[in-house]
Amino acid sequence: MIVVLKQNTQKEQVEEVKNWIGEMGVQVHMIEGLHTTVFGLIGDTSKVDMEQIQSNPNVESVKRIQEPYKNANRKFHPNDTVVEIGGLKIGGGHFQVIAGPCSVECEEQITEVARRVKAAGAGMLRGGAFKPRTSPYAFQGLRAEGIELLLKAKRVTGMPIVTEIMSAEHLPLFEEVDVIQVGARNMQNFELLKMLGKTNKPILLKRGLANTIEELLMSAEYIMAGGNPNVILCERGIRTFETATRNTLDISAIPILKRLSHLPVVVDPSHAAGITWLVEPLSKAAIAAGADGLIIEVHNNPKKALSDGAQSLTPDDFDSVMKPICRLVDAEGKILG
Amino acid sequence: MIVVLKQNTQKEQVEEVKNWIGEMGVQVHMIEGLHTTVFGLIGDTSKVDMEQIQSNPNVESVKRIQEPYKNANRKFHPNDTVVEIGGLKIGGGHFQVIAGPCSVECEEQITEVARRVKAAGAGMLRGGAFKPRTSPYAFQGLRAEGIELLLKAKRVTGMPIVTEIMSAEHLPLFEEVDVIQVGARNMQNFELLKMLGKTNKPILLKRGLANTIEELLMSAEYIMAGGNPNVILCERGIRTFETATRNTLDISAIPILKRLSHLPVVVDPSHAAGITWLVEPLSKAAIAAGADGLIIEVHNNPKKALSDGAQSLTPDDFDSVMKPICRLVDAEGKILG
Amino acid sequence: MIVVLKQNTQKEQVEEVKNWIGEMGVQVHMIEGLHTTVFGLIGDTSKVDMEQIQSNPNVESVKRIQEPYKNANRKFHPNDTVVEIGGLKIGGGHFQVIAGPCSVECEEQITEVARRVKAAGAGMLRGGAFKPRTSPYAFQGLRAEGIELLLKAKRVTGMPIVTEIMSAEHLPLFEEVDVIQVGARNMQNFELLKMLGKTNKPILLKRGLANTIEELLMSAEYIMAGGNPNVILCERGIRTFETATRNTLDISAIPILKRLSHLPVVVDPSHAAGITWLVEPLSKAAIAAGADGLIIEVHNNPKKALSDGAQSLTPDDFDSVMKPICRLVDAEGKILG
Amino acid sequence: MIVVLKQNTQKEQVEEVKNWIGEMGVQVHMIEGLHTTVFGLIGDTSKVDMEQIQSNPNVESVKRIQEPYKNANRKFHPNDTVVEIGGLKIGGGHFQVIAGPCSVECEEQITEVARRVKAAGAGMLRGGAFKPRTSPYAFQGLRAEGIELLLKAKRVTGMPIVTEIMSAEHLPLFEEVDVIQVGARNMQNFELLKMLGKTNKPILLKRGLANTIEELLMSAEYIMAGGNPNVILCERGIRTFETATRNTLDISAIPILKRLSHLPVVVDPSHAAGITWLVEPLSKAAIAAGADGLIIEVHNNPKKALSDGAQSLTPDDFDSVMKPICRLVDAEGKILG
Repeated sequence: MIVVLKQNTQKEQVEEVKNWIGEMGVQVHMIEGLHTTVFGLIGDTSKVDMEQIQSNPNVESVKRIQEPYKNANRKFHPNDTVVEIGGLKIGGGHFQVIAGPCSVECEEQITEVARRVKAAGAGMLRGGAFKPRTSPYAFQGLRAEGIELLLKAKRVTGMPIVTEIMSAEHLPLFEEVDVIQVGARNMQNFELLKMLGKTNKPILLKRGLANTIEELLMSAEYIMAGGNPNVILCERGIRTFETATRNTLDISAIPILKRLSHLPVVVDPSHAAGITWLVEPLSKAAIAAGADGLIIEVHNNPKKALSDGAQSLTPDDFDSVMKPICRLVDAEGKILG
Repeated sequence: MIVVLKQNTQKEQVEEVKNWIGEMGVQVHMIEGLHTTVFGLIGDTSKVDMEQIQSNPNVESVKRIQEPYKNANRKFHPNDTVVEIGGLKIGGGHFQVIAGPCSVECEEQITEVARRVKAAGAGMLRGGAFKPRTSPYAFQGLRAEGIELLLKAKRVTGMPIVTEIMSAEHLPLFEEVDVIQVGARNMQNFELLKMLGKTNKPILLKRGLANTIEELLMSAEYIMAGGNPNVILCERGIRTFETATRNTLDISAIPILKRLSHLPVVVDPSHAAGITWLVEPLSKAAIAAGADGLIIEVHNNPKKALSDGAQSLTPDDFDSVMKPICRLVDAEGKILG
Repeated sequence: MIVVLKQNTQKEQVEEVKNWIGEMGVQVHMIEGLHTTVFGLIGDTSKVDMEQIQSNPNVESVKRIQEPYKNANRKFHPNDTVVEIGGLKIGGGHFQVIAGPCSVECEEQITEVARRVKAAGAGMLRGGAFKPRTSPYAFQGLRAEGIELLLKAKRVTGMPIVTEIMSAEHLPLFEEVDVIQVGARNMQNFELLKMLGKTNKPILLKRGLANTIEELLMSAEYIMAGGNPNVILCERGIRTFETATRNTLDISAIPILKRLSHLPVVVDPSHAAGITWLVEPLSKAAIAAGADGLIIEVHNNPKKALSDGAQSLTPDDFDSVMKPICRLVDAEGKILG
Repeated sequence: MIVVLKQNTQKEQVEEVKNWIGEMGVQVHMIEGLHTTVFGLIGDTSKVDMEQIQSNPNVESVKRIQEPYKNANRKFHPNDTVVEIGGLKIGGGHFQVIAGPCSVECEEQITEVARRVKAAGAGMLRGGAFKPRTSPYAFQGLRAEGIELLLKAKRVTGMPIVTEIMSAEHLPLFEEVDVIQVGARNMQNFELLKMLGKTNKPILLKRGLANTIEELLMSAEYIMAGGNPNVILCERGIRTFETATRNTLDISAIPILKRLSHLPVVVDPSHAAGITWLVEPLSKAAIAAGADGLIIEVHNNPKKALSDGAQSLTPDDFDSVMKPICRLVDAEGKILG
């Protein structure tokens, strides 16, 4: 950690700050420049509270050199984490396609979609039971009933299921769910992350709309610090000034996350763009950039979808999108499914 | 609501879409352009699901004309809402300064700060008991004990208290809290908002880092739709590319929120900038732009603060910042405290 | 074009606005809603000034339905444009890799890099003679001399050259340059665009840091409206809140530009990320998303580069990056070089 | 300047980098951490090319401690710069309101607006002769004729005039113009900035849509490094995800620019918001935050304005906006006009 003091800080105060930091259990190395003094902190700085140092009135700025996450950090865990889900693997060369409707609507819908996406090559079924909606007047999901329907589809098809949790209180309903999804809006719902850290369920953690790559890794760290190592990171687009797409898929986040962390990285091209015909090119780009999986919205009747229909493929569309996906996953030397 | 069809949609399909929308309980008015057909939807479009229409493969785009919020909308409630908090008022010409430390740390700290900020003119005391921290290794707040300490400071000074909730499960601990704060990261924690809608506590709702003004109003709508009209909106900076400040205070949000909604609007200059010396100019700008209150961090020993010290004023700094604040509130014809 | 009037506009004023717009040479179709009146404008709205209508005090909002660009629009030019450069083709299935140093520094450097990148499969040579630098104290490029050196490298290797123009005044120096690059900072230097529209040189037009996809196409339109159809669009990253990369490569822009326009689209992974090791995954992603070419920085001695060394590959790095590029271009059914 | 090496860099390479940097004319101070080595560079680092160091394959990151600008830096010029314009002053306690239409349209319009804004208290007249328009098909300004009309209005009213330059070639036409404006889109048109640095005209330099505060100061530095100290900085809104306003006025930029630099800072509330009724609250906020002036669009007939009418006030509106402006400038202890 590097601490830059304000210009022209008095000698006495420089000493005072030096001693104060020294008491935090690190060695303080001093560099006196022409106008400015800089401290280099040596030792285990992970316990040093950067903001506390920043609060000192003589401190101009603080720069961390070590990453603030450990469990999620590839430096301390060089090999890829492979998350196992009901016999399936993701990460470490294993690629998974997760597909299904935005919202679970009825038994017929979800089992029909499940059958179709399985036939096309998807390994897992996704479907929303609890739905975060901007408007209190919009359809909020079938909730507990939705989870029941997903479990029925799981029994029928044998596919592991992925569904979103919106509150720690609902955790008992997720007993038989295979992968619990944390949505973008809850990426920094730290109380929820702590609860999920105490389970051993695989967690699909979506990046928040305005969250940095480092913040995503810190949220993974919350779950892992609680004892749950089964975290799957998900890039799903960030909010920018561009309006041609709903969000801007941050394609660079994929190789960066893979380099900084050992966790698997999946991409959600449906939510990133919000446009059906972009699912194919963005899926291909994600694979080429190194993703370990995709999560794609498929609805058997998008026209009647109760939420997010605009970005859902039909099962026929999905069949045709899966062809280049399979080809490219193979070309990248990964195993699909 | 305006629905634009894709160019060169076949006549038959135009009819089909028209009938489909017609069944949603609105009148459909058709305009045939040279290349494009446009529908104007007349009637109560608040129940029409925009995304469902958008999902139709023949639809190019949908544009809402009515605002999607009702309870929070000034059109249906022209007069300013005045929220009453333990004898104090905010909104409708009443201005409040809420001050206190980022985190509650001990009894001495919180009562001392409370005394000082009250003496300087603050009406309410703020202090964090539950602290949302990016890192799981950072101080997470005194939690239940922190609320106890705030209540002690309330008894000693008579000041109403404002503190943040991070999970619906903690609600019972907030029984005696005067104003419950929803932090920026939880602005779209819809399950929490619904729970708060069932209480009658005043809610201080902070704008999310990447949330639009409309989304803030939709989150207020969640609380109000549940039956709780006591919502105070808070602008606290948005995330942009600029790095000179921690966030970018969206000063325009103040007059826009005041025009679109009847709810009181407060500004948090401490979190918006993350820099102590900016608190004064930003507070003044907020008042000049029409804010109904300010929420300012004050710590009796920022050097030792366990979180966010960099942006905290000392009680002496706060005394001097309150002078121009009082002057400007008065010049704007508002009543302080 | 759709014009939404303000709520409760008086009948008389509605008529007045209707007649006023009618005089602009379009048919005005009126829809009367419960609270709002909407006009649909039918006919050639490309000559209607949206902002002028927006300025009317009774107008709430204006929405364009037709795209505001014609020459660049795929609707009026369904086939891919193929730009020819000294015997090479780009677009319509032809893929080009443009490579070379950020700045031209000396004859030895530029010819050596040219030889190496040509051997590795690059079709064109890039190099900066005029360099836009944030600081007036940084190296500003060799200017006229830099162009001379590029021309020497062209003579030696036979590669067409691409170099940036920073001012219309320098145009005479670009007589023998094959492709003139307009940098991101000059994307809306409209006077420069107009001048380039009068030449018949291929123009490589880079997207501005904060410019939308539509604005990029409007800048292309400036050049094309002047009579020069040879525009190559370049996505090179936009400015967002994320700091892990210098800019955020907007991968979705590639398929969107290809759908909206017939112009070739190239991607600059070097400037988008600002990080050497990201050039490979981003290049692959760009090809998978449908790009027609890449522009990559290669320097024979990045350690000594006078500008932007951090993002430059060595010739050896470039050799190894070209392998997956060739493979993927081929898999996409395109012809390299 | 702080240079952080990559983790586990070999001792030999550490030495090599140290010597390499040492040759740049600075002292290199080394701190060896557990995993990382850090160098502190002591001496005049303004000539050290940060990007060149960053390009070294053993370097992880470089952090500048000194600001990269000198002429614009308050550290080397503690007193406020007062720019004098035809007898008027701006900066150092002198506040100016610059008002006028977006575009000059005809003699009657510009002289009428000039008379009205002068009567209301504006000190200078603005008007666009050269107009940067997104579309090549939109009105591009009266150009040379527009400047003629502005000069007529100047003769009639005695007001100094402010108008935008779009290309260095047009400089001879600006002989009698009092203040040359550089628009947001040209803030990094470095060739233009260099030319303006050779004049002694006051330059109103607008912040680019996606430019940081530091980049704005670096562009001012370009002008000042050329020998022209008469730079007025202008905050006019930045591009963010929020769509309720055209741009987001960065109110914090005002106090930050005033602290970092001695140059006067004006605010353009018309372009920042793009909404007439926001001009008053944003003008007030700007004054409260410490601005030295305002630039406001006023048109005698916004309905017929050929550009940007939506954000223009009528002269009557301007009269009423000037009242709180005068009051607030006075309350801030500044001299208007």
